[in-house]
Amino acid sequence: MKAKSAGKKIWVSVVMGSDSDLPVMTEAAKILDEFGIGYELVLTSAHRTPERTTKFAKTAAGRGVKIILVGAGAAAHLAGVIASQTLLPVIGVPIDATSLRGLDALLSTVQMPGGIPVATMAIGKAGAKNAALFAARALALEDKSLNAKLTAYVKKMARDVEKKQQNLKVL
Amino acid sequence: MKAKSAGKKIWVSVVMGSDSDLPVMTEAAKILDEFGIGYELVLTSAHRTPERTTKFAKTAAGRGVKIILVGAGAAAHLAGVIASQTLLPVIGVPIDATSLRGLDALLSTVQMPGGIPVATMAIGKAGAKNAALFAARALALEDKSLNAKLTAYVKKMARDVEKKQQNLKVL
Amino acid sequence: MKAKSAGKKIWVSVVMGSDSDLPVMTEAAKILDEFGIGYELVLTSAHRTPERTTKFAKTAAGRGVKIILVGAGAAAHLAGVIASQTLLPVIGVPIDATSLRGLDALLSTVQMPGGIPVATMAIGKAGAKNAALFAARALALEDKSLNAKLTAYVKKMARDVEKKQQNLKVL
Amino acid sequence: MKAKSAGKKIWVSVVMGSDSDLPVMTEAAKILDEFGIGYELVLTSAHRTPERTTKFAKTAAGRGVKIILVGAGAAAHLAGVIASQTLLPVIGVPIDATSLRGLDALLSTVQMPGGIPVATMAIGKAGAKNAALFAARALALEDKSLNAKLTAYVKKMARDVEKKQQNLKVL
Amino acid sequence: MKAKSAGKKIWVSVVMGSDSDLPVMTEAAKILDEFGIGYELVLTSAHRTPERTTKFAKTAAGRGVKIILVGAGAAAHLAGVIASQTLLPVIGVPIDATSLRGLDALLSTVQMPGGIPVATMAIGKAGAKNAALFAARALALEDKSLNAKLTAYVKKMARDVEKKQQNLKVL
Amino acid sequence: MKAKSAGKKIWVSVVMGSDSDLPVMTEAAKILDEFGIGYELVLTSAHRTPERTTKFAKTAAGRGVKIILVGAGAAAHLAGVIASQTLLPVIGVPIDATSLRGLDALLSTVQMPGGIPVATMAIGKAGAKNAALFAARALALEDKSLNAKLTAYVKKMARDVEKKQQNLKVL
Amino acid sequence: MKAKSAGKKIWVSVVMGSDSDLPVMTEAAKILDEFGIGYELVLTSAHRTPERTTKFAKTAAGRGVKIILVGAGAAAHLAGVIASQTLLPVIGVPIDATSLRGLDALLSTVQMPGGIPVATMAIGKAGAKNAALFAARALALEDKSLNAKLTAYVKKMARDVEKKQQNLKVL
Amino acid sequence: MKAKSAGKKIWVSVVMGSDSDLPVMTEAAKILDEFGIGYELVLTSAHRTPERTTKFAKTAAGRGVKIILVGAGAAAHLAGVIASQTLLPVIGVPIDATSLRGLDALLSTVQMPGGIPVATMAIGKAGAKNAALFAARALALEDKSLNAKLTAYVKKMARDVEKKQQNLKVL
Repeated sequence: MKAKSAGKKIWVSVVMGSDSDLPVMTEAAKILDEFGIGYELVLTSAHRTPERTTKFAKTAAGRGVKIILVGAGAAAHLAGVIASQTLLPVIGVPIDATSLRGLDALLSTVQMPGGIPVATMAIGKAGAKNAALFAARALALEDKSLNAKLTAYVKKMARDVEKKQQNLKVL
Repeated sequence: MKAKSAGKKIWVSVVMGSDSDLPVMTEAAKILDEFGIGYELVLTSAHRTPERTTKFAKTAAGRGVKIILVGAGAAAHLAGVIASQTLLPVIGVPIDATSLRGLDALLSTVQMPGGIPVATMAIGKAGAKNAALFAARALALEDKSLNAKLTAYVKKMARDVEKKQQNLKVL
Repeated sequence: MKAKSAGKKIWVSVVMGSDSDLPVMTEAAKILDEFGIGYELVLTSAHRTPERTTKFAKTAAGRGVKIILVGAGAAAHLAGVIASQTLLPVIGVPIDATSLRGLDALLSTVQMPGGIPVATMAIGKAGAKNAALFAARALALEDKSLNAKLTAYVKKMARDVEKKQQNLKVL
Repeated sequence: MKAKSAGKKIWVSVVMGSDSDLPVMTEAAKILDEFGIGYELVLTSAHRTPERTTKFAKTAAGRGVKIILVGAGAAAHLAGVIASQTLLPVIGVPIDATSLRGLDALLSTVQMPGGIPVATMAIGKAGAKNAALFAARALALEDKSLNAKLTAYVKKMARDVEKKQQNLKVL
Repeated sequence: MKAKSAGKKIWVSVVMGSDSDLPVMTEAAKILDEFGIGYELVLTSAHRTPERTTKFAKTAAGRGVKIILVGAGAAAHLAGVIASQTLLPVIGVPIDATSLRGLDALLSTVQMPGGIPVATMAIGKAGAKNAALFAARALALEDKSLNAKLTAYVKKMARDVEKKQQNLKVL
Repeated sequence: MKAKSAGKKIWVSVVMGSDSDLPVMTEAAKILDEFGIGYELVLTSAHRTPERTTKFAKTAAGRGVKIILVGAGAAAHLAGVIASQTLLPVIGVPIDATSLRGLDALLSTVQMPGGIPVATMAIGKAGAKNAALFAARALALEDKSLNAKLTAYVKKMARDVEKKQQNLKVL
Repeated sequence: MKAKSAGKKIWVSVVMGSDSDLPVMTEAAKILDEFGIGYELVLTSAHRTPERTTKFAKTAAGRGVKIILVGAGAAAHLAGVIASQTLLPVIGVPIDATSLRGLDALLSTVQMPGGIPVATMAIGKAGAKNAALFAARALALEDKSLNAKLTAYVKKMARDVEKKQQNLKVL
Repeated sequence: MKAKSAGKKIWVSVVMGSDSDLPVMTEAAKILDEFGIGYELVLTSAHRTPERTTKFAKTAAGRGVKIILVGAGAAAHLAGVIASQTLLPVIGVPIDATSLRGLDALLSTVQMPGGIPVATMAIGKAGAKNAALFAARALALEDKSLNAKLTAYVKKMARDVEKKQQNLKVL
């Protein structure tokens, strides 16, 4: 696949603090692809590349980005650091990267003090997927075609449950 | 104060599962007032009024609501239940309502399985305030006046820190 | 095996939120089989199929179901959502489905606010097994034959401990 | 009030390990009173009165008791110890009695190994209330009048939410 | 190996709630063998064999047992249940037997209410080993030969550290 | 009261790391008084007075002390440090002295690595009381009079439960 | 008192994210005063004043500061953010500022990924005091007078324990 | 590799409580090698070799050691015990050595009471690496060449992030 949607406006930045977060954040990218939302993959660290992070955060809106998804593990500061340097909505995905199984990343991401919001999703792949779906919901406020895709997505999820019911048997 | 912004389109629903959650969710309402964003206060319980909750969730978009903020404590299902019955962005605020100090509400709100996103804020008043600020950021994507207000808000926060520096003395 | 007891009244619904929960909930089905209690396996999600869940919950009593066992992981809302839409006793089984090892599912299931009870069992297979045994105890209040089976089951458990004592040796 | 329902068959035992648990377990008694279900209050400790506990557990069914509600704090063994000596359904209420705020009692009650079920409710007063409501649901399987009372109870809860909506105002 | 020391007075009972706890409790038995302290392996469950457990607890002192070591997992009630039915010192070893990694067993064992003491060791094999060493310390109060063995054991541990220093190299 | 039993052999040292631990450890002293066991109160810190602690640990047995009870909070190293410098049985009482409510002291005390045992009691006053009761059980192995006192103590606890039953009334 | 040591070189910056952290960080200032180490109190927020924080971090070394102590609560990013923009040693003090009692601040501060170190102290006042003592130890490597003061401080702590022993009495 | 830097003054002691901690503490040694800082590997246990630990702690400064890095797992007392017997700065690295995944070691290390500081790093390898980097920062206060190496190290980290950006692709 790719690090940037081809031939589309980039509306969503999928940011991660380490390339080891990629298998998780790929779940977000897949959803954005499925919904036809242009995105870019960005690697920047709150701690190892603070200037790069600041530059990214300060220029994202100007480049047309509308929503920023941020995955990070351990003492996950990246989402908060970006949210403090942009006015765009920032969505955090805590990643299970230490022996504490993502509890550290969850609390570091979600417990933001009043003033600078980070909208936090579940730890790991489910969270990355939902970050992209949340972005789609927010973008759908002004884009009817996304609304239709979300409706279809939700219907498909329901149909899948019904289909799986058919195969349900005691093991 | 009031339960609904007068003379304004209602863009944000501030929902809570119990009237005991009001002191927390009032922090969200105050921010929305400050930003001039029309909102309504809604009391509905995932468990005690499931039909009312379903009706609320299914009609919110049609009534012009764009974003739903949901505060709930204990086994906090309300945000997830609403998110499963609307395509609007849903923001959850876990509330410290039991002896487990909001850890139960946090995990019940944030650990949503893939497919239905709930964007979760910090436990309690900081979370409620940030839920409203996040809504302002999302609405500002299409409303330049909100962008200016957010810029002013962020500048004021910074100035307040600088002012407080003046008064800082060892106790 | 099967998804529904053949030739028996269905007294127990064994519900799960995802087909990945089946290896756990099968433990409940096996006990119900052993006790000769008619049951059905139902796949429905609080979030992906809210209407299906509502329909299930509202019609279960009318179809003769007496007790509902519900397995779910992560932010496990399913048992609470069902309990809010039926008057039947609902028993929740938290499932270890995320990096938090079932603590999220446990708190999401057990910390129900006053008014809508969910009787919660241990995380995972032990909980699924005990959910079925608890159902048997409740049904035995009006069914003497179940009482006899429970007595036999408990005696067998005790005998098994005594037998295993024979084989106990320092490794 | 009283320690035993007057002029009624005792269907429910409300057991507690210490008289300091009474303010919590009173919530269960109130619900049983409201539903007209005969109950007794029993004080017995798994550790300080093991024989009394065994005698209670072994004779409860014979005395006509149908369901046992058990409140206990700290290393809360009482519900499990009773459940191992009766075939009646046992419902556990973890009580916040130590500096760990009920987490110890919750895990000691809910994490029962496979074979002996304890149906666990939330920590504290909400859990005690729900224990009684769960008992009412289980007894209602064979008692239509209870079913009607449960229906009325649930409707009243919903009406109360609607009424409180009228008074909702930003603080 | 064996389930009982041959040709020695049985001073220590090594009790476990399930034969799956044997790999852990074997660590205790090995230490007792090493110190020449007579012991027996006992399998009895607080929940599945309450009468067997009561009989064991009530007769242990009479049979000459001086100290009881108890391993149990999940909602680990066994040590407390035994301690409530004997006046012998009871030492608990929490076992990692569920997805909560022994935290449930630890809290269920250590948080005993005032009146009935259970002396708790670390979760798992280290705890089982230390339970036996603690028993040796207690028995050594009246047995000088044990004191000498403990002194030798402690010296050997220290020497082993010094030896391992020789082999220490950066990996 | 006093810091040392008058006119009795000192069999038990009640050690604490800070004088702020005294209200907790007093519970141990009261039980020892009640059982007529000679004890001393010792204040020594693992960190602030390491030499004093070493001296205490190395001389305790020689002074006739048989069992050491140690209360400490926060990163509670005191029990482990003493246990590593004596062969006497050491019993640890974790104290709730920080915002983590004794969880830090519990884990610092109980999770001792294999080789040096610390027998851990519950956090706080219940633990201090049980530490003394455990000491009484261990000393009773060689002192019949203590055995009789323990029997009386346990009987009184049981009678107290029965008496309190008389006063039990719904609040 | 003051926000800056008068007539001394400023060797230590005592930084905090909010003026509500002052009662905690004052404990650090008191120790620095006691040791005669010049310090400044700095108020800057990782999130509300990111530029101020960057400016502070980038200029501290040039102004002669040698060690930075940072107190912050909730999702405590401040220490990490400063450590990523200076090469000076940064010491973090997690502050109990939310319903999670400082666990969030502790994990957000201590779980730094490899590459950017933050040396973390205990939650709250003990941590703030120790941060200053740690700074004194580090500065004493090159300042013999500090070494003498540390020696005296440690001796005084030991003497205080011995004095308090005199007053120890069972309550 | 080796247990001691050849041909260099030993400025840093890398201490561990068990040789099983070596794979973690090796991360510290590698950084020290990379920065050309002389170090020694020391194996000593707070509990199994208390005298060796005391001797190490009391002689380190005299041998020219400036900073002590200490890795330990479980009830990790080693860093605190050393810090109480030296005036050198002590840095603790909690190690994931039990079923509690390092939470026990973290709290045992970081929650030091006021008076004796232990500067704590993250659990495991990241913490060991950062312990060495923190030592380098502290030593760089008086050693300009280290400052240059730290600057280069930080720049390389940043460049590595930028390079990895090139290879970033959705999986």
